[in-house]
Amino acid sequence: MPVFLNAEDADFEASFTTLLGAKREDSPDVDRVVADIIADVRARGDAALIELTARFDRMALSVDELRFSDAEIDALVAEVPAEERAALERAAARIRAYHERQMPADESWTDAQGAMLGWRWTPVSAAGLYVPGGLASYPSSVLMNAIPAKVAGVGRLAITVPTPDGQANPLVLLAARLAGVDEVYRIGGAQAIAALAYGTETVAPVDKITGPGNAFVAAAKRRVFGKVGIDMIAGPSEILVIADGSSNPDWIALDMLSQAEHDESAQSILITDDADLAKAVSVSIDQHLQTLERREIAGASWRDYGAVIVVPDLDRAAELSNRVAPEHLELCIADADALADRITHAGAIFLGAWTPEAIGDYVGGPNHVLPTARSARFSSGLSVMDFVKRTTLTRMTPAALKAIGPAAETLAKSESLQAHGLSVRARLDHLND
Amino acid sequence: MPVFLNAEDADFEASFTTLLGAKREDSPDVDRVVADIIADVRARGDAALIELTARFDRMALSVDELRFSDAEIDALVAEVPAEERAALERAAARIRAYHERQMPADESWTDAQGAMLGWRWTPVSAAGLYVPGGLASYPSSVLMNAIPAKVAGVGRLAITVPTPDGQANPLVLLAARLAGVDEVYRIGGAQAIAALAYGTETVAPVDKITGPGNAFVAAAKRRVFGKVGIDMIAGPSEILVIADGSSNPDWIALDMLSQAEHDESAQSILITDDADLAKAVSVSIDQHLQTLERREIAGASWRDYGAVIVVPDLDRAAELSNRVAPEHLELCIADADALADRITHAGAIFLGAWTPEAIGDYVGGPNHVLPTARSARFSSGLSVMDFVKRTTLTRMTPAALKAIGPAAETLAKSESLQAHGLSVRARLDHLND
Repeated sequence: MPVFLNAEDADFEASFTTLLGAKREDSPDVDRVVADIIADVRARGDAALIELTARFDRMALSVDELRFSDAEIDALVAEVPAEERAALERAAARIRAYHERQMPADESWTDAQGAMLGWRWTPVSAAGLYVPGGLASYPSSVLMNAIPAKVAGVGRLAITVPTPDGQANPLVLLAARLAGVDEVYRIGGAQAIAALAYGTETVAPVDKITGPGNAFVAAAKRRVFGKVGIDMIAGPSEILVIADGSSNPDWIALDMLSQAEHDESAQSILITDDADLAKAVSVSIDQHLQTLERREIAGASWRDYGAVIVVPDLDRAAELSNRVAPEHLELCIADADALADRITHAGAIFLGAWTPEAIGDYVGGPNHVLPTARSARFSSGLSVMDFVKRTTLTRMTPAALKAIGPAAETLAKSESLQAHGLSVRARLDHLND
Repeated sequence: MPVFLNAEDADFEASFTTLLGAKREDSPDVDRVVADIIADVRARGDAALIELTARFDRMALSVDELRFSDAEIDALVAEVPAEERAALERAAARIRAYHERQMPADESWTDAQGAMLGWRWTPVSAAGLYVPGGLASYPSSVLMNAIPAKVAGVGRLAITVPTPDGQANPLVLLAARLAGVDEVYRIGGAQAIAALAYGTETVAPVDKITGPGNAFVAAAKRRVFGKVGIDMIAGPSEILVIADGSSNPDWIALDMLSQAEHDESAQSILITDDADLAKAVSVSIDQHLQTLERREIAGASWRDYGAVIVVPDLDRAAELSNRVAPEHLELCIADADALADRITHAGAIFLGAWTPEAIGDYVGGPNHVLPTARSARFSSGLSVMDFVKRTTLTRMTPAALKAIGPAAETLAKSESLQAHGLSVRARLDHLND
């Protein structure tokens, strides 16, 4: 049974805190296995990749087959029906247009002392994108990871995607091509992360690895962090819908189920000031759960982690939502803009009844890789910023050094860092000669 | 002996690769101890903090003494001599002015389909800053961490700083006050990180933790990551100086020693196209190592990790520097701007002979918390961006949904996510009714 709460009940605070603290993810301890796999790939390179791929993906690959050839990609891409190709092209164009606006600007200026200050942004040279195989092999995720990298100017973008039993997803390869991916490898699991981080004879190492994966992939990303950059480790998906009495309960039910169907650990929460709507949404969810293709997954998610909260007013809804800090927040209310101004923590906001969250998964334009598990309190979704880095710039003139150098000398002395002070003093003495 | 290399020697590539791969940091395995400390603080709160502080810092504190009172801070701040106060104020003002320019802008626009798209930045609600005690208790680091947080709009900023044997650094408290820090606690080590992440009766939990620390602090930060955000785990400091024959060898020597004196694991590298300069710098370093206060530390760093590389021309210097991706890069050459344009990976660049790196440690304005251990390939120094997060915005209109909704439906179907498609279809059907 999902949780039904009323914010005016005496025990609400305790129940809400329990809801916030619920652990939705089992993290099997695969760290030792992953450490061995990484060590093996570092030691034996391609040979280890081939052996591990044979074992885990039941694929006998030669060294030449580790990477998809252009001809192989051409052949697979040609299988994609026209309607799906057009939809993917539309999505790619919209995602690219959105992310192009994220490119940060270089800055430089001269201050009152004559010092030039500023910063410059440069792209990561090479990035790797992990794409899961099998059921969770989503072409939309390829676009969402690869397009920001290419917009940022990443020179070399490699994808690894396991092809268990030889099954490759033509849409994934089309998405890679539309996004401008440079290399695609038929490898997966911790071995793919090891190859991207450390390189093998066939796979050149990258500087940053992004993309979702199972527990082995997540553990491998944690292990190679430092050697390369990684994106966040994503948890199960989640949606919070704030709705008022004007909402269509069936739409809200479907929006909530569109998160629930992702994963048994997904979470869907409705907060409303209308008890009748709460009931109607709940009834509609139960009806859809009779027929939905992924009803077993969605049903388990709704039963174990679903929640409906009735509040006296929408201000309270915003306050509770900020405590949840949801990955996806839908504001299905009359004045969505006004309430959006009160939202301080959310990965993405979907404004108004005509904006189902699923639009954001595919074609809206914003990224669908978003902070989960309340991490929107301190982190952001994937963006161009994840593929660029800032170099700060400083240039002193003799006059500027005369003006501010003595303060640096004083502070160096107070921190007992003599050479720091001397490096400034030697120049100041030269000016005073 | 530091390494002396010539880029035109036959074995240069092998030697340079060895230099790049040198591991400069011992990470003692303190993870189990840290896990126990965190569990203890979570279970027993203030009582655990008091007990651990008694054990590690030899301080008997009451609950009321865990936090510095305003009067205690006033009294300590009053001890700071006028010259040091003025220097710290100057540094704070310059750091604030630089970081205020980093505040990112909100954006929103309406696209050709009538969809409103954009994003909003919001600050982290509460942040904690770890400040080491004892020798490495640097007031400059307090400014560099706290000012970006306050510029970002962080509502509540707490500092933890251990006071072993009751020793507090008045300059650290002055820096905290100048930066607008709200709370200062007399705790340190893994127990301080645990208190910031999980909260105790006295310390309210924060959402993000930054600041340097020893192996225990670093391990604790890794452990609480996910529950809260953390900054990078900083490694030993490093400088790479590119200098030509116009350089003053004594200035270069002091700049290199100003990194070496930080830590026995620090690294100073000189790359020059002038073999005579290489020799002169080396001689000057050896001379200063006779008298420098921290000569034991600086000498060990120079002996174990120092390097001098002679190159045929400055293009080669830029190329090698990009492979190092240094934390600090000084360009002590005639045309520093031209070479800076060829630098793709560096935490901070110091342009020209009048810009010793030490200026950047204190009063330049840019942040001195910078990526180490070659991580400038994929990450940036601390900034206002570390204390804000982006929420993406999407609002569809009926017309926009009609235009792009069908593409979302198609992609949802191809990913076998039926409820995603239905959530769009239900709205489109309503429009077509």
